[in-house]
Amino acid sequence: MRAKVEVFLKPGVLDVQGKAIEGALHGLGFAEVDHVRVGKTISFDLGDGADRGAAEARVKAMCDGLLANAVIESYRVEIA
Amino acid sequence: MRAKVEVFLKPGVLDVQGKAIEGALHGLGFAEVDHVRVGKTISFDLGDGADRGAAEARVKAMCDGLLANAVIESYRVEIA
Repeated sequence: MRAKVEVFLKPGVLDVQGKAIEGALHGLGFAEVDHVRVGKTISFDLGDGADRGAAEARVKAMCDGLLANAVIESYRVEIA
Repeated sequence: MRAKVEVFLKPGVLDVQGKAIEGALHGLGFAEVDHVRVGKTISFDLGDGADRGAAEARVKAMCDGLLANAVIESYRVEIA
């Protein structure tokens, strides 16, 4: 099984990286770009032992413990 | 229209951030985790003027020009 975790800043938290990218894209002539948000994607293999539900619970524990900062970030887990 | 761009290091390029996360997860007791890869996700609004194909071509031009380093990174574009 492979897990994919997407970590994004919560709406309302200033995304400075996104603002920088937006400014750079405007400077390159892509004036239609707006509301840029930048996130992290972390993908990894899990053992084949556990079932899907258990794997998802483990990955959520990883997110809460290490991968995401719950104060300012939200995450989405996909197991494939 | 909203575009989502995923930028990942190409296979074979050492992912130091992924290695660090892998080590930390192992340290926290998640020993089943393997082959961690870390990428960026950039999502943004586009104007509603252009059609889907034209928008995708514009976003690919943004990736080649700014968002991804073609030497070591690959990207995937989604238009929704």
